[in-house]
Amino acid sequence: MAEKNLYDVAYELESAMREHEDYTKLKELYDQVNQDEVSKKLFDNFRNMQMELQQKQMTGQQITEEEAQTAQQQVELVQQHEVISQLMQQEQRMSQVIQDINKIVTRPLEDLYGSPEEDAEQ
Amino acid sequence: MAEKNLYDVAYELESAMREHEDYTKLKELYDQVNQDEVSKKLFDNFRNMQMELQQKQMTGQQITEEEAQTAQQQVELVQQHEVISQLMQQEQRMSQVIQDINKIVTRPLEDLYGSPEEDAEQ
Ligand SMILES: [Ca+2]
Ligand SMILES: [Ca+2]
Repeated sequence: MAEKNLYDVAYELESAMREHEDYTKLKELYDQVNQDEVSKKLFDNFRNMQMELQQKQMTGQQITEEEAQTAQQQVELVQQHEVISQLMQQEQRMSQVIQDINKIVTRPLEDLYGSPEEDAEQ
Repeated sequence: MAEKNLYDVAYELESAMREHEDYTKLKELYDQVNQDEVSKKLFDNFRNMQMELQQKQMTGQQITEEEAQTAQQQVELVQQHEVISQLMQQEQRMSQVIQDINKIVTRPLEDLYGSPEEDAEQ
């Protein structure tokens, strides 16, 4: 068999991901949330808050008690929303798939540089 | 054609990367540097310094003038080392390949969440 071009295989992986059930389900739920004005706004607010808090944590800033409370309230709010909570569960499933895929395709580099886990152990 | 399993394609991508000329060259140079004690030490020191400075930048810490000077000296030192400088050039080539591959395989998620570039423009 002739050696397949690296980029051709990458495009194959892209297609396989689009056809993967975890992706098609995610897309369905995501569209469903975004097509409804109320749920879109709820979800967008939640995401923005999450990103702000992550940003703060990454840059070592303190999260205030008020911010933590607002965050907790927003989590409870989106958890009560049927479609959004389904979407978030589906995002977790997709995230696991992507982590698995990432582990596979980064092994050639790990063989040279070691894995992040190995580094953490040292 | 039967639908290929996502993970099978990921393993194919792993193999294709290992066979890619930019990877085999990188591995060759990397082994060459690490098999020589002097060049290994020079390269390791350089890498550790780079990581420390990156860490500081990411966490918003100031880089002192002394650190900047030491860094500059180390860059000059490794640039004069024939094999290490070849290795670093090869790392840049490989890094470009990986960026390209990454762009391709993350498109399904970009279609849902937008690309980082798009976000930056907003
Ligand atoms: Ca390893
Ligand atoms: Ca897009």
